[in-house]
Amino acid sequence: MSNSTLSLTGEDSFFAKLFQALPEMPASVVVPPGDDCAGIRFGDGRLLLVAVDQLVGDRHYRTDGENATSPRLAGRKLLARNLSDIAAMGGHPTFCLLAGAFPKSRAQSWLEEYYGGIIDTARAYAVSMIGGDFAATAKGDEVGSLTILGEVEESLVLLRSGAHPGDLLYATGCFGSSFPTGHHLKFTPRCQEGRWLATHRLACAAMDVSDGLLVDLARICRASGVGCQLDLTRIPRRTPQTTLQQALTDGEDYELLFAVPAAAGQELRQKWPFQTPLTRLGVFDSSGALSDQEGQPLSIAGWDHFQR
Amino acid sequence: MSNSTLSLTGEDSFFAKLFQALPEMPASVVVPPGDDCAGIRFGDGRLLLVAVDQLVGDRHYRTDGENATSPRLAGRKLLARNLSDIAAMGGHPTFCLLAGAFPKSRAQSWLEEYYGGIIDTARAYAVSMIGGDFAATAKGDEVGSLTILGEVEESLVLLRSGAHPGDLLYATGCFGSSFPTGHHLKFTPRCQEGRWLATHRLACAAMDVSDGLLVDLARICRASGVGCQLDLTRIPRRTPQTTLQQALTDGEDYELLFAVPAAAGQELRQKWPFQTPLTRLGVFDSSGALSDQEGQPLSIAGWDHFQR
Repeated sequence: MSNSTLSLTGEDSFFAKLFQALPEMPASVVVPPGDDCAGIRFGDGRLLLVAVDQLVGDRHYRTDGENATSPRLAGRKLLARNLSDIAAMGGHPTFCLLAGAFPKSRAQSWLEEYYGGIIDTARAYAVSMIGGDFAATAKGDEVGSLTILGEVEESLVLLRSGAHPGDLLYATGCFGSSFPTGHHLKFTPRCQEGRWLATHRLACAAMDVSDGLLVDLARICRASGVGCQLDLTRIPRRTPQTTLQQALTDGEDYELLFAVPAAAGQELRQKWPFQTPLTRLGVFDSSGALSDQEGQPLSIAGWDHFQR
Repeated sequence: MSNSTLSLTGEDSFFAKLFQALPEMPASVVVPPGDDCAGIRFGDGRLLLVAVDQLVGDRHYRTDGENATSPRLAGRKLLARNLSDIAAMGGHPTFCLLAGAFPKSRAQSWLEEYYGGIIDTARAYAVSMIGGDFAATAKGDEVGSLTILGEVEESLVLLRSGAHPGDLLYATGCFGSSFPTGHHLKFTPRCQEGRWLATHRLACAAMDVSDGLLVDLARICRASGVGCQLDLTRIPRRTPQTTLQQALTDGEDYELLFAVPAAAGQELRQKWPFQTPLTRLGVFDSSGALSDQEGQPLSIAGWDHFQR
């Protein structure tokens, strides 16, 4: 089985190199860079969770033309993808800050809708917007950058690094075709599910799938020092037209991918209180690589800013 | 005296309107949006400070051509302007996160220098970089968005709203000509000075001057419900060529502007342990407007994304 199946993406490599250059973290940084959120101990056994995620015009939504994205949905998406990062840690979100850079040509009414989409979503998830910054871009790009804060008990936090050989791989929801179906704008971040998995101690590792099922699964495996045998016959596809390749690599699914100790699989299925689909996708192993249900190697082809 | 001297800038108005639409803040938000940082109570009498600030290519630094800014200095600037926000609250910085959006054409070597400038500056100020995000822009813009975290004792925090009629207005450093002199890339954020002012309880209000002396002074006045008589003969100018107008409106000074109770002015001057220039610029009053040393109204003309 080729080592390249778990090779770092160009982006991962770039940041792995950068983060190696960082000074040693203070002891309070319980979850260092590289997970969905950083986690900082702040007393009473709690961690402050922090993450930042961006939404770029004409990358993550359409800025103009007949198919222009509603600014309200674009704003919603920006916050929702950050909420998904908190969900993946088993935490609950608390505060956010928004840095927005837009061309001067953007109408104030458009900006009000965009910010309104964020504020409405924040209200729905009990998140308070506590700050921000506003700037003009020089060449017409639109970049929203949202910082999310949250909390989780240190004893309950879900990390990418918690999977062991023998653990079962589960996922919420469906995969692929996120852009053509509009899922990428309307998805429900799995905040309730992530929090439930943490508080019921049924998952031992988790992350949210934003760059594609395979590439993100490889990240869990790498962080945990394990491999995974993925049952390709079980991948839930978003539509009847969604191909297996699309389900594995499209990205923007914003579903949770998580590891469950084999002994807890039955309890998970019995107690799962959500309408959200729950699917067992495979089993972690000690191979250090990804393979399919027949043991054939799987190669990663997901979103990578340095490669496509 | 015209009310317009303290009118909101277009950007301030836009955000004032937005923030009015926000749900009520939790009680833990001791410093709500509108100051240099938000402040959240997190136990032991301490506040978590949080702010976000952006650096946009060809707005805040030059991306190409003969006068292209060194990426290392651009990265340094991004962190330094955030450090200045923590300094203005009397706090000390702890952690940062970086969201970067760059065109695919940016060479990896350039990005390494840019990130290197941030990491080196972080090390110098004992700040740990705990996370980030990386994205590609569609139209060639470069946007760095940095979130800074810090701490300050709740009993010592310096707010924009703490100035009273009769308080003296002081400033660190010099004003104007920040771009032509390169000050905007090489300034030293006033972290030591801000922290000293807070711990010695010599200032009762502070902010950092990033958008121009007049417009930022107007923000302190508005937050405090006061006015200010500014002695235009005392404004320290960065160079002999710097005009008064430039000193008042250029922006990117990254100096501290702060209020000192009249009775503490002498102690401040005697104890000031820094080489950084310290200048008394005027006195706060109850007029609710800005005026010069002869009582003539001063109009605000500073950086405003919606107006120029």
